[in-house]
Amino acid sequence: MRQALAELEFQTEGQGLVEITGDVAAWLTSIGISQGLLTLHCRHTSASLLINENAAPAVQRDILRWLDGIAPEGKGYEHDSEGPDDMPAHLKAALTGASLTVPVADGKMLLGTWQGVFLAEHRASPHRRTVAVHLLGE
Amino acid sequence: MRQALAELEFQTEGQGLVEITGDVAAWLTSIGISQGLLTLHCRHTSASLLINENAAPAVQRDILRWLDGIAPEGKGYEHDSEGPDDMPAHLKAALTGASLTVPVADGKMLLGTWQGVFLAEHRASPHRRTVAVHLLGE
Amino acid sequence: MRQALAELEFQTEGQGLVEITGDVAAWLTSIGISQGLLTLHCRHTSASLLINENAAPAVQRDILRWLDGIAPEGKGYEHDSEGPDDMPAHLKAALTGASLTVPVADGKMLLGTWQGVFLAEHRASPHRRTVAVHLLGE
Repeated sequence: MRQALAELEFQTEGQGLVEITGDVAAWLTSIGISQGLLTLHCRHTSASLLINENAAPAVQRDILRWLDGIAPEGKGYEHDSEGPDDMPAHLKAALTGASLTVPVADGKMLLGTWQGVFLAEHRASPHRRTVAVHLLGE
Repeated sequence: MRQALAELEFQTEGQGLVEITGDVAAWLTSIGISQGLLTLHCRHTSASLLINENAAPAVQRDILRWLDGIAPEGKGYEHDSEGPDDMPAHLKAALTGASLTVPVADGKMLLGTWQGVFLAEHRASPHRRTVAVHLLGE
Repeated sequence: MRQALAELEFQTEGQGLVEITGDVAAWLTSIGISQGLLTLHCRHTSASLLINENAAPAVQRDILRWLDGIAPEGKGYEHDSEGPDDMPAHLKAALTGASLTVPVADGKMLLGTWQGVFLAEHRASPHRRTVAVHLLGE
């Protein structure tokens, strides 16, 4: 049993879902562990990780609009010094979560046919985001 | 330290919570690892996993009604080609999450007294669902 | 590769976020594993765990108010025998989740600059809560 740990960096273009399935898969391949457990951790409080359908881009747009409805701007938040998109971003990050765990088989994430891994940028402006990736296995 | 990986299959009856605590516990027993880390991953984007109270069935019904309120049908979703229940199902899956991680002690999940593990079917019609189970420990 | 497992206990003062980052970090230090994977699991269905900003206390208050809005009391829940705050507590726990996983490097959680680990108490009255902590690594 062995482990590997790295940090992957992503540039976002402002609010949106960035699919990182391929980047994570490439890192997995570079490590060469066949079976194990993969953990992803987003090191931010206004961006997050989620798994959802990656085939239909309309699903991703609907998810973003739904998040806007659940954690809208302009709701009289006490914390508003960093702009109207800041507190909604923290709420969306709390809802979707900072971490994902996915079993690995044959050197690949055991995702379903329609599952993709997304980095969700919840701030309006572009940001550089760091995702820690950790693999345990053999 | 060793690991085990399998896929458990469940038939759902349409929208609802299917308690899978016993199935997962039986798999754990069959592996014979005493202490470790269990990860469950639902390989779908319109079904998900969650831990909640398993004693009072009314709690499960309230959870389902609450999810219906948070991600209702008929809200003018852009992605609507697969039926009115499809996009709400993706949203509920994003909210509750695809994966669970639970420490294992004495060969059992370290759940609280009232915690059960549920596969949440968010589509209206019955589906066959696959949950990957991974155990690391000794 | 080795593992460690313990249970940390926390006394809450009723509804609120209790930052437990320091307690978890102290446990990590006591184990002496340099690199690995940390899992936290809250053994309750009306309390949960989340990672969010720990610098501005206003963020935490906004999160609590937002949760109150998403899972309000007095909505005609079927399960209401344990008080008006009970079913909302289950819903908030389902939304935020029972478990967290965080990679560990140099004996520390690989959290971002602004990330703190919080135990979220969703019941109105004080409770004694147990969080299982599990570490795999070397």
